[in-house]
Amino acid sequence: MSDELGARVWVVPGGRVPFPAHGPEPAFTGFDQLCVLNAGDREVEVTLDLYYEDAEPVGPYRVLVGARRIRHVRINDLVDPEAIRLDRPYGCVLRSPVPVVVQFLRQDTRLPGVVALTGTIAYPA
Amino acid sequence: MSDELGARVWVVPGGRVPFPAHGPEPAFTGFDQLCVLNAGDREVEVTLDLYYEDAEPVGPYRVLVGARRIRHVRINDLVDPEAIRLDRPYGCVLRSPVPVVVQFLRQDTRLPGVVALTGTIAYPA
Amino acid sequence: MSDELGARVWVVPGGRVPFPAHGPEPAFTGFDQLCVLNAGDREVEVTLDLYYEDAEPVGPYRVLVGARRIRHVRINDLVDPEAIRLDRPYGCVLRSPVPVVVQFLRQDTRLPGVVALTGTIAYPA
Amino acid sequence: MSDELGARVWVVPGGRVPFPAHGPEPAFTGFDQLCVLNAGDREVEVTLDLYYEDAEPVGPYRVLVGARRIRHVRINDLVDPEAIRLDRPYGCVLRSPVPVVVQFLRQDTRLPGVVALTGTIAYPA
Repeated sequence: MSDELGARVWVVPGGRVPFPAHGPEPAFTGFDQLCVLNAGDREVEVTLDLYYEDAEPVGPYRVLVGARRIRHVRINDLVDPEAIRLDRPYGCVLRSPVPVVVQFLRQDTRLPGVVALTGTIAYPA
Repeated sequence: MSDELGARVWVVPGGRVPFPAHGPEPAFTGFDQLCVLNAGDREVEVTLDLYYEDAEPVGPYRVLVGARRIRHVRINDLVDPEAIRLDRPYGCVLRSPVPVVVQFLRQDTRLPGVVALTGTIAYPA
Repeated sequence: MSDELGARVWVVPGGRVPFPAHGPEPAFTGFDQLCVLNAGDREVEVTLDLYYEDAEPVGPYRVLVGARRIRHVRINDLVDPEAIRLDRPYGCVLRSPVPVVVQFLRQDTRLPGVVALTGTIAYPA
Repeated sequence: MSDELGARVWVVPGGRVPFPAHGPEPAFTGFDQLCVLNAGDREVEVTLDLYYEDAEPVGPYRVLVGARRIRHVRINDLVDPEAIRLDRPYGCVLRSPVPVVVQFLRQDTRLPGVVALTGTIAYPA
């Protein structure tokens, strides 16, 4: 269970945190999420750079993922170096010093009483 | 943050802009979207060719993506060389002079009070 | 627009045509769909083999895709050599004599007044 | 129809079995599912290791997939070596002695009268 699996650079071009959200938080918060699996034997700090339509990239956002652990990062929880604006189109690039695997998930609860999901394995660059 | 990432040709076979749509525009418009991330240091013009079940391909549609920028392109907004017909099956091929990454997203609001999403990283050819 | 793009073998392990369906047909029929893009300069006959949990594979199902055309094939419309049973788990393998690109899409309308979508680029083997 | 297709290691970082669920079981149970296609000529035992945010990986879970068969495994049905806790973030790594293909599917029925789906081909490591 200790192999290194995956790639060091991952890309998600189609980000946009849904806003507003309906329903109890945090279960029905609208979110974009990056799910990272680190099968390796040491903790890693991965970095995220966010790209926009109308501004220079912002980053790095830093996220720790333990050895043999996953981490599900809600993009809307990122605040340093800059809080993420909801409902703003973005893309992101994740870089890791060791191979990891990354999946993207969106939960959309903009309509009351409705939940929509979409996701995909990110692109390993 | 200035590396070139991705591939020069991307394919999405399963297009079809949902119609009709319900809910306020543009948030709840039915759409198919191509999300492009250009991590490189120069602006690029990418081209789209649309393929159909019953007619020759139409294109190129031209889209600019700035250096270190994303661009989320709604297929239903494309008008030149030919407006896209809603609810018509299509596929598309995106070509870029430099590597980019492409994600496909559909928002379906054909039913009042319902939003359905689906998407995937496109196929890098 | 005439290049050959893609791969000759594509796999979708997670098939199951949703049943029952609610809403007007064919727009709200429950379906699993394979979307094929043939960017090449000649018509191709692709073949599908369907795999099951409890029976030998069935096939080949034959589907024509014109030169420079797409074809969106609803699995539930396949009848030869054997009609597809709805709500039965299956997987499928598509083979093509020339490179094509394949995307999977499911539309689920088992609940009245609800549409759910999911899809992914198929696996190029 | 007897070729070996796919890869021997597959990764899904973004697991979380939706809870609670609404609607008749098993059709509307909330689930995460791994769909495995074994195109080869012999039965295989694939193993799953589950990774968590706050604990060491758990496994191997063992699943048989017949020759020329698919198997759709609901993660929430896994009980040995340890039952899966619902609504807990996880990731998983599937290993097979021969090539197989793996697709991930989630069905979310946490809201009464709503079904949401998302899925993707898993990452072939």
